[in-house]
Amino acid sequence: MELNIALLAGDGIGPEVIAQAVKVCDAVAEKYNHKINWQPALTGAAAIDAVGDPYPEETHAICAGSDAVLFGAIGHPRFDNDPSAKVRPEQGLLKMRQKLGLFANVRPTFTFPSLIDRSPLKRERIEGTDLVFLRELTGGIYFGKRGREDNGETAYDTCTYTRKEVQRLARKGFEMAMKRSKKLCCVDKANVLESSRLWRETVQAMEKDYPEVNVSYEFVDAVAMRLVQWPNAYDVLITENLFGDILTDEASVISGSMGLMPSASLGESIGLYEPIHGSYPQAAGKDIANPLATVLSAAMMFDDFGLLEEAQAIRDVVNRSLAEGVVTEDLAEKGKARKTSEVGDWLAKNL
Amino acid sequence: MELNIALLAGDGIGPEVIAQAVKVCDAVAEKYNHKINWQPALTGAAAIDAVGDPYPEETHAICAGSDAVLFGAIGHPRFDNDPSAKVRPEQGLLKMRQKLGLFANVRPTFTFPSLIDRSPLKRERIEGTDLVFLRELTGGIYFGKRGREDNGETAYDTCTYTRKEVQRLARKGFEMAMKRSKKLCCVDKANVLESSRLWRETVQAMEKDYPEVNVSYEFVDAVAMRLVQWPNAYDVLITENLFGDILTDEASVISGSMGLMPSASLGESIGLYEPIHGSYPQAAGKDIANPLATVLSAAMMFDDFGLLEEAQAIRDVVNRSLAEGVVTEDLAEKGKARKTSEVGDWLAKNL
Ligand SMILES: CC(C)[C@H](C(=O)O)[C@@H](O)C(=O)O
Ligand SMILES: CC(C)[C@H](C(=O)O)[C@@H](O)C(=O)O
Repeated sequence: MELNIALLAGDGIGPEVIAQAVKVCDAVAEKYNHKINWQPALTGAAAIDAVGDPYPEETHAICAGSDAVLFGAIGHPRFDNDPSAKVRPEQGLLKMRQKLGLFANVRPTFTFPSLIDRSPLKRERIEGTDLVFLRELTGGIYFGKRGREDNGETAYDTCTYTRKEVQRLARKGFEMAMKRSKKLCCVDKANVLESSRLWRETVQAMEKDYPEVNVSYEFVDAVAMRLVQWPNAYDVLITENLFGDILTDEASVISGSMGLMPSASLGESIGLYEPIHGSYPQAAGKDIANPLATVLSAAMMFDDFGLLEEAQAIRDVVNRSLAEGVVTEDLAEKGKARKTSEVGDWLAKNL
Repeated sequence: MELNIALLAGDGIGPEVIAQAVKVCDAVAEKYNHKINWQPALTGAAAIDAVGDPYPEETHAICAGSDAVLFGAIGHPRFDNDPSAKVRPEQGLLKMRQKLGLFANVRPTFTFPSLIDRSPLKRERIEGTDLVFLRELTGGIYFGKRGREDNGETAYDTCTYTRKEVQRLARKGFEMAMKRSKKLCCVDKANVLESSRLWRETVQAMEKDYPEVNVSYEFVDAVAMRLVQWPNAYDVLITENLFGDILTDEASVISGSMGLMPSASLGESIGLYEPIHGSYPQAAGKDIANPLATVLSAAMMFDDFGLLEEAQAIRDVVNRSLAEGVVTEDLAEKGKARKTSEVGDWLAKNL
């Protein structure tokens, strides 16, 4: 298979972790006789500095013309406490999601037996947790009308959803539930929000098309609690954009393996794969960042190409690196930390 | 002091836990020579059944004419999965908050040494946690314009804030920070939302009035993570209505003492005090619900009346009941559970 993959390294540790994923993908390609054409492109603060736009037109053209996008991280602290900044790296992210139509963010949370004791939760609470969020990514309050009134004294944002937007996200949720344990939780705030009532009634109407799926409806505040109390009670969860932003981040830390969690953002035709950790500017350039989440994101990409064996090979070699302690300082025993680049080399060699 | 206190027992276990708080307050009044005039009034599903309105005019008149409101819980499962229900108990809650002007919801999360092992978090993560959320309660997406368009195919909700609304909530936050460790965290999503940018710029402008307070600004998704990772890094947190709904519930379960957490909702003149647990319909009428959160809410009420000794007396007797194991089945050793009413009697007697 010949694959054209756009490569968006981004900011902070992005370039370093992306470089390791490239090594691993190239090793997979060699082993299984694929050809990968990497197409690097600018994004984030790096793109603002270079061309004044965090998601430039050329970058979009490259992404839109590729089979998938492998993404590092964006964000830079110099923009964070400046509410008046005109161009922010995050805008690039939102523009990219919208222009590529990446409406479904897939965010698994699972545990690695060898890392379970790093969880802030007690072992008996977290053991066996294997859940996945489907977060709507191109609608809701992220993309609604917003602005100021009364000379800037009043600010507003609008959360809008159409039934079609809910249906296409929910369909992915039902399909994922069918492949897993047939359990789906629709997270909303239907006791207050009209958009949530649309979500709930739309999902309720779809239940008849998936009679085997057991659907529950829970309020976002209750899920925020239960994720900490009994995370392994959940399997597939679907939710709108903002609730998904908050809950997926909450879920990511309960496993104790936050630095290893991958994600995918899917559209009708193209997928984008990225680690959930951020750009971690303090570690940038030091060759110490953990590349495993990015490598596991690449495994999700191979899965979506239908190359299941390739994906599994990546997951297997990651598990071996964990078992053998070939890991960066965040996971290593004292004095045994490997560099980011060393971990990448080891993975590529041992695949 | 003569105190007129509106008594809103509400639904589910509400009446049972409220009854115990009344016993304790009466014992305090006797001991310290106060006179409490209790003014019972209908609310929630109970009020819908009786008069078709979850917050009837008569109830509002009683609350508005009182010095404080002591509140149980509302909500009934028969309304939960019916998106088309015209009148819902929760609407009563929202109407009450708005009509009484209860703009600041005070939600502490703290630990009881004897209960710390009940936390889903490891001891070293949760020990020493003592934080308090100030959630804005009468604005934002809860009260903005909402509706349907395109024959019901599109739904929208609007989040609106004015600078004045932010200022009055933030002022309470700064004042609370001054009384505690002078640390304030403003939680928002200023990298996306215009209303959050108004929050952030308003709070930033207020910093000069409280030069001793150390203010941090964090995104809601990051706080959702850090609350699980390092809850004791926080002290006072201020946030808008919806973020507060989600984060306060998340925070409530980390202590392991969810059944004991009190809350206050404050306006310019009147305060409402309620346990954070819900109406817990499965336990209603069984005399098994834990009344301590309601009793501790009454302690917050005495604090706000400036009756600090009385408030402390309540907290002391609650601590003794915990130490001596005079507790309901959720906290009791096997075979040693007391009834709700027995705990109330014991507290009143031992105060
Ligand atoms: C950076 C920000 C705009 C973004 C979001 O809120 O979607 C991030 O938090 C995420 O979840 O990818
Ligand atoms: C019942 C509901 C409307 C309410 C809210 O969201 O405010 C509840 O969750 C709360 O936090 O008091």
